[in-house]
Amino acid sequence: MKEVRILEIKQSVYADNDKQAEELRKELKDKGVFLLNLMSSPGSGKTTTLMKTIEALRDQLKIGVMEADIDSDVDARTISQSGAKVIQLHTGGMCHLDAGMTRQGLDGLETEGIELAILENVGNLVCPAEFDTGASKNAMILSVPEGDDKPLKYPLMFSICDVVLINKIDVLPYFDFDMEKCKEYIRMRNPQAKVIPICAKTGEGIREWADWIAEEVKKWREA
Amino acid sequence: MKEVRILEIKQSVYADNDKQAEELRKELKDKGVFLLNLMSSPGSGKTTTLMKTIEALRDQLKIGVMEADIDSDVDARTISQSGAKVIQLHTGGMCHLDAGMTRQGLDGLETEGIELAILENVGNLVCPAEFDTGASKNAMILSVPEGDDKPLKYPLMFSICDVVLINKIDVLPYFDFDMEKCKEYIRMRNPQAKVIPICAKTGEGIREWADWIAEEVKKWREA
Repeated sequence: MKEVRILEIKQSVYADNDKQAEELRKELKDKGVFLLNLMSSPGSGKTTTLMKTIEALRDQLKIGVMEADIDSDVDARTISQSGAKVIQLHTGGMCHLDAGMTRQGLDGLETEGIELAILENVGNLVCPAEFDTGASKNAMILSVPEGDDKPLKYPLMFSICDVVLINKIDVLPYFDFDMEKCKEYIRMRNPQAKVIPICAKTGEGIREWADWIAEEVKKWREA
Repeated sequence: MKEVRILEIKQSVYADNDKQAEELRKELKDKGVFLLNLMSSPGSGKTTTLMKTIEALRDQLKIGVMEADIDSDVDARTISQSGAKVIQLHTGGMCHLDAGMTRQGLDGLETEGIELAILENVGNLVCPAEFDTGASKNAMILSVPEGDDKPLKYPLMFSICDVVLINKIDVLPYFDFDMEKCKEYIRMRNPQAKVIPICAKTGEGIREWADWIAEEVKKWREA
C-alpha cells in the first residue's frame, strides 16, 4: 500500500468554536470547496462507504478526504487506493474535531482544486456532535449491528445530521433490527433528516447517497 | 415493563479525578462492594451481555447495575427484567463518567447488601478510557461487526482494560473479522489483558467471563 501523509492535529486555541466554524464555512464557500462531515460509531463502515462514494462521484467532483483517528493510518491507506487525495489526521487522543482542527486538516490536505472535501470524523456518537466543524452538511452512519434504538440514546448526533445512512443492510437477517422503528426514532429526533439504507460492501444504496451529495453541492453552488 | 429509577448525574466539581477515584475505591473496599466498569462502542452488546452475566452470577453474588446513557431508559428497563437492582443514570450529554459521577450513581443505586456493582458506561471508545471511575476492574466489549482493527485506532481503551470480550461471534461468517489478528492487536496494546470471545445472544463464552468476574471478586476480597 502507498505511504500516506500523517498530520498531528493540535488542540484549538479558540474559545468560540461557532464563530470559527462560520468563518471557515464562508472561506470554503469563497474557495468553492464543499465540506462534508461524516460521523459514526467506531466500526460502522465510514471508510468502506467513502471508498464506494468516491467511486460513484469521481467523474463528477474532485474529491479530497481527511481521515481523523486517534492513532493508526489504516483508513488513509485504504482511501489512497481510490485515487482520491487523502491525508491522515491524528487527534492525539482527542475525541472529536472542532472548526480550528478541521482548518488544520484542510490546510494539510491542500484544497486547491478540490470541490468536495470529506472529513471522516473520529468514531464517536457523542462528542463530534457537539462541535461545528464548519462543514456545509453533516452526515452520519448507523450500522444495523448497532441496533435500531441508537437515536433514543444519542439524541444530539441524530438531531444535527442532514442525512443518516443505515449501513450493513446485508446482515439484516442476522440481527434484531426493525428498520421502520429505526426510521421512526430518527424522525422523532430530526424530522428533516434524509434516511438512506445502504450496504457499503455490496454498493446497494450508494447511488442514492452519491446523488444526494451531488445535488447538495449543486444547490450550495447556486445559493 | 417495570418502571425504573432515573438519576440525573451532575458534572463533577473535583479537579483531581485520580484522587477521587482512589478514595472511592478504598471506600468500596471497606463496604465490600466490587465495582466493575464496562465500556464499549454504541451497540456492541453491553446490555445483552449484562443480562447473561447476571443470570450466570446471581446465585453467587448480589448484583447491582448502573446504566449510564445520555438519554432514554431502555437499558435499565431491560436489566430490571433480570431481577437485579438497577438504576438508570442520565449524563446530560456528557460523554463519560468520572469518579465523582460514579459516586453519585452508587449513592442513587444504594449499595447496601450489593457485592458486585456494575457500571455500564456511556457507549464510547474514547472518553470513558480517560477517566478512572474508581472501579476495581475495567472491562470492554468489542463486537465482531466493528472490525478487528479497533485496537489500532483506540489504543487507550484497550490499554486500560483488564479484560476484552469479543462479542457477536455468531456472525463471524458474515464479516471480515480475523480473530487471531484482533488478539494480536490487543496484545500489542495490552499484553496483560484477558481476551474472551463470547456471544451474548446465545450465551457462548458467558461462563468463562462470569468465572473470571467471580475469581477477581474472590482475589479482591482476600487482598
